[in-house]
Order: sequence, then C-alpha cells, then structure tokens
Amino acid sequence: MNLNDPAIETPCLVVDRARVLRNIARLREKVGGADVVLRPHLKTVKSIDAARLVMTSPQGPAAISTLKEAEEFGRHGVTDLLYAVGIAPQKLDRVVRISQSGVDLAIVTDNIEAAKAIVATATSYEQLIPTLIEIDVDGHRSGIKVGDDMSLVAVASILHEAGCLRGVMTHAGGSYGLTEQAALEAAADNERTGIVQAAELLRTNNLPCDVVSIGSTPTVFSSRDLSGITEIRAGVFQFFDLYQAGVGVCAVKDIALSVLTTVIGHQRERQWTIIDSGWMALSSDRGTASQPVDQYYGLVCDVRGEPIGDLVVLKVNQEHGVVAVRPGSGSAPMELPVGTRLRVLPNHACATAAQHNKYEIVEACMEVTETWPRFGGW
Amino acid sequence: MNLNDPAIETPCLVVDRARVLRNIARLREKVGGADVVLRPHLKTVKSIDAARLVMTSPQGPAAISTLKEAEEFGRHGVTDLLYAVGIAPQKLDRVVRISQSGVDLAIVTDNIEAAKAIVATATSYEQLIPTLIEIDVDGHRSGIKVGDDMSLVAVASILHEAGCLRGVMTHAGGSYGLTEQAALEAAADNERTGIVQAAELLRTNNLPCDVVSIGSTPTVFSSRDLSGITEIRAGVFQFFDLYQAGVGVCAVKDIALSVLTTVIGHQRERQWTIIDSGWMALSSDRGTASQPVDQYYGLVCDVRGEPIGDLVVLKVNQEHGVVAVRPGSGSAPMELPVGTRLRVLPNHACATAAQHNKYEIVEACMEVTETWPRFGGW
Repeated sequence: MNLNDPAIETPCLVVDRARVLRNIARLREKVGGADVVLRPHLKTVKSIDAARLVMTSPQGPAAISTLKEAEEFGRHGVTDLLYAVGIAPQKLDRVVRISQSGVDLAIVTDNIEAAKAIVATATSYEQLIPTLIEIDVDGHRSGIKVGDDMSLVAVASILHEAGCLRGVMTHAGGSYGLTEQAALEAAADNERTGIVQAAELLRTNNLPCDVVSIGSTPTVFSSRDLSGITEIRAGVFQFFDLYQAGVGVCAVKDIALSVLTTVIGHQRERQWTIIDSGWMALSSDRGTASQPVDQYYGLVCDVRGEPIGDLVVLKVNQEHGVVAVRPGSGSAPMELPVGTRLRVLPNHACATAAQHNKYEIVEACMEVTETWPRFGGW
Repeated sequence: MNLNDPAIETPCLVVDRARVLRNIARLREKVGGADVVLRPHLKTVKSIDAARLVMTSPQGPAAISTLKEAEEFGRHGVTDLLYAVGIAPQKLDRVVRISQSGVDLAIVTDNIEAAKAIVATATSYEQLIPTLIEIDVDGHRSGIKVGDDMSLVAVASILHEAGCLRGVMTHAGGSYGLTEQAALEAAADNERTGIVQAAELLRTNNLPCDVVSIGSTPTVFSSRDLSGITEIRAGVFQFFDLYQAGVGVCAVKDIALSVLTTVIGHQRERQWTIIDSGWMALSSDRGTASQPVDQYYGLVCDVRGEPIGDLVVLKVNQEHGVVAVRPGSGSAPMELPVGTRLRVLPNHACATAAQHNKYEIVEACMEVTETWPRFGGW
C-alpha cells in the first residue's frame, strides 16, 4: 500500500524510516568516540517502536518528559529512565509506584522544597528516589544558576541525607535561538563547562555526583569536547524538523517526519490551495517565524516527500490549511488538483507528532510498511 | 475530591460546569426567538457528555470537523450531523459507510471536481449523500465567492442530478479578527446577506436549497437579523476562551475551560515561577498576540479559577511553562510556593482541549464531580 491509497486516511503522520536510521547513525557517530552514555529523549516519539530504534538496548537508557511515558515505556521493558522535568511534590507517590514496578526512574529538581519532599517520601516508603539536580547554564528556563554554590550545596546536602543524590543535569535550551556554527560551538562549550563546574563543586564538598548529564539537539551536534560529561540526552534529532534545519543542525532532506494531507479546494483568485490539514494536524507552532527563513506552518512536499517550489502552509484553521507560495519568494504558483496528496514538513517535530496517535512508516519514499502507535497525555 | 487532591494529576483539563450551562443558556436565549435550528459545533468539545449538554436532542443536530467525530458521536446515537470541512474525494467511501450505519451525515464542497466525485459515489452505492455548498462571504478561507453565480450554479447542478443538493453554508471566519461591536454586527449582517443571496440564486435556478446554514461564534452572538437562515452553527461558545474575550463576545469570567497546573520551581532573579504545563498542555496558540491585550500562553488563576493580578504564562517549552507578570503591566510579582496549584485560562479553547484526553468537571469552583473522556484523531 502506498501513500496515495485511499485506505490511508488524511491527515496522518508519516515517518521515513531510512531518514530516521540515518539521523540516529549520525548522532552515534558524533558521540561514539567519547566515553558517554547516550540517553535519547523519547518525548518527541512517544512510541515504543521508535524508542527501540534509537535506544542502545531494549532496557534503555532513555529520558522522558512525563510520568505517563515512564509507565508506558516501563510496561514495554524499558527500565532505565530519567524524568527530565522538575518534580512536583504531588507526583512523588506515583514516582515510587513506578520505581516499585522495577524501573530505575531518576527524577530532577532545582529547589529545597522539592528536595525535602523527595527525602520525606523516600524515607516514608523506604524507597531510594535517585535525583539529579538541574543546573541553569544559559538562563533559558529552570535550574540552579552556575556559580550559585550555596543553593547547589544546600539542595545536594538534603538529597544526600537520604542517599538520593545521583548527580547533575542541564538543558542548554538557549542554543535553539542560534544559527551560526561558532555560536553553537560556544553554547556547547558553555553547557559543558557549567555542568562540570557544578559536578566539581559537589565532589569538593564530599557530595556524590555519579551522573553529569547534558542535552539539547543543537549543542550535542555542535560539541567538540565531552570531558567530564557522563551522558548526553537529545530527542528531536531522530526526526529533525524545519526549526532544526533553520538552526543549521540538519538539512531539509534529513527531516523524517511529515503530515500527509489532501487538497480539498482552491481560491484561485488568491492562488490558494486548501488542504485538509490545519493546526490540529500540523500544530500551531510557528518557531521558524523568528528564523531567517520563515516556513509558516510547514513546507509543502509532493507525496514522495520532495519539496515543491516554495510552497508553504500559509494559514491554518482547525482542519483547514491554506497552501501558497512563500510570500516574497517570487516563485510561480502551482496547480494542485482536488484530491492531490501532499506532505507537509513540520516546524517542530515534537509539537506536530503530539497531535497524532500513530505513525505510518514508509520505505522507498512512499510505501507504507508498518503502523506504529504513539501515545500522549500525562 | 477537590482540585488540590494529589489524585488529580497535573496538568489536566478542568471544566466549570456552571459556566458551561450559563454559556449554553446565553446562546439559546440569543437565537431562541428566531425560527432557526441550533446545530452546535462539537469540534471543540469532542466529548459525548459535553455534546449532550449543548445539543437540543440526544440525536442532534450537530456539526463536526472530522469523520472520526461522525463515527464517535454516531456510535453514541447522534444521527443528525454536518461534516463542515470540504470533502476530499478519497473520504467518500467512509462517508457512505457512516451513512449506512444510520447517521444522516451531510457533507460540504465548493468545487466541481468534488461534486462530480460525490455524484459518482452516490450513484455507485445507491446512497444519497446530502451536500451543502460552501459559500465564501468574507475571503477568509474556502467557499464559492458571493456573486460567482456561474460556479455556484455549476456545482449545484451537478449535485442536484443525483439528488444530493441540500443547501448552502458559510463560516464568517473573518469575524475573529474584529473587536468592535459595530464591526461584529456588520460582519453578521454580511454573513446573512451573502448566504441568503446564494440560496436565492439556487432557487431562482430551480435548484433546491432546504438548508441555509451560518456559523461563527462572534457573528452568532452579534446577529440582529436571522431572516432567510435555517440553521446556525457555533462551537467555542460552550467553553469560550481568552481570544473570544478579546473579541468582546464573552467576559473572562465566562471562560469555562482551564488547565490545572503545579508550581515546580522558580527563577527568583527574573521573577519567574516555573509550572508543569508547557505547550503540550496549553497548546502553542498565540491568537491573543494580535489583540489589544496579549495574554501570552494563557492567563493565570488560583486553584478556584480567579485571575491572580496580571500573571500570564510568558513562555512555554514542551512540559515547562514560565509564569510572570504580564510585561508592561507594572503589577507586583507574586510568591507562589513549589507545589501550589494554579489554573491557566486558554487563548483558544479548541486548541487547548485538543491536547488532552479527558475533562475534570468541577462544581462550586473546585469540587471534581465527574470525569468526561474526550477523543482526538481523524
């Protein structure tokens, strides 16, 4: 069955298996020489089939973004997991339940209140809760700032009391805003230096720090030195997307994820083609709006996955998309008859994948060979 | 059980039942005097429980945005449905299967190619496929332009050959960009005038036009005259959202949908509070960015649903949100301890609800009395 078969309903999510394998091989080659653990982040794929392609063993390791992922991947035998979002105290009972089911589930915090709750829970259940302290290397989001030694030692000391301190982690999310190779390399250096400094502070204070974990797709692909790092996390690289292409970490031809859609009408006066995919199928992510090349709601390809001129999804409603030539590009519009199938490359693979509950896996550009379920929720 | 109970996991979707009932009553009062059918759009709620509150009978009528909705609501006994997105020819076999299961499923098109495919399918299955022709009253999206009489008669004549022509429909989506009452009333007048003109053209040409259907929440609430209209569709009004409040169609206190979230950390130097809800729970919809009051990724309320100062969700990543005072508001920041539960009002109820698979229904502000499943997909 190929992507033009009416039995494949549109919109749906398509994954080019060859591209996924190539993207995974590229990351492994990048970090293969270094003595680090590859802990792929499964928040993008949320599929055990996709996870098994990227993990170095069926048991993991892997990073996750929700406790639902811990339960789902745990159920499928993945037993080495890091829940990489700061813990809310109310979630600790569920963390313990997952740990007791046989998963080595590490969690993350950056503050004293949560550290105290972790210790209290670990003590009350007599269950070790391995915890990484989040470090903020670039002011992007959460974490204890590099150099705030007092806070770091305070949180670490509390966790260590109950044997829960496993190490430190960071996410150099600021790298997503970069596009120059030199700036990306500097961000990778800064990420490594900051987290290693935090790890050394702990060790100097006789606090254990077995794990020193970094991760963001742009910095991982731009790193030149991983000394002092024990593990790297990266997620979106498995599929890549237009945003990462804008950053310069991949090319458009590396993007393995697309949304299959069908033409349902036209507004010929405006040179618009209407498709059956709006924000529900594509997501409302407009990340590329801030990059040199604005891809609007996605870059339009033919059914085999080849970009068509400068066609983009210009506007979206819930289940409608408007395809047109990228404003300012000067390319000629294209007649795409009603019923034509197209594929839209996403701005942000995590966001677009999240709108769907399965992947159609294609080989040789458009032959559907498998369907992988994916899950959502918390 | 109330919203502070740890058994209620965050993030999750909360619906204030009293507000929903009030919003429904308000729409019914608005159109109650007119001799029109209320065909609520179920694309926002995607829940049989929510549908039963708003439909005028358990069998419908209702409008839907996917064939999955037709199947799901059909399975629960809703038998009068309008699939209000232009049909792709490849979907017609599935339309027939749904019709044969006992649902009166009307579809929509605006072009000759699809009309021919509808007639061919209806003939080959000996199954009537009732069809409305979409009219474009404001250049917003799809539809035959008001005044393009040749196209309208051409499409209608093809459909009529096989007895498939049921009438005309439009969606005055341009009204979403308005904020002034006079402009909204003018948009409602324009919607009515345009669709009635299309209906009259058909009748003048001896073509049937039993249904004259309009619908957009802003124009429905701003209409002053419904003569010539047989049915109205509206969807988001059941929940309302910050975007509709920005248009002026509702007040913030009418918004019945929110996302329950938990504080997981702080960046005190920047006066940021970090929550466990990012774009995955809130959606990336930034519709209010173009309105006079930018609500960023949502307006922050306490656990009872009361807005807190000028707190908004300033930034989002996948599972992290940054809560801060709205830039430029001058309000004082607020200390919200780790573990505090908050509720975030959404920019766009349809987009936020789409990120979840259930609703927690609350009465008396925060007592959870029911959980309603919701579905997604196509």
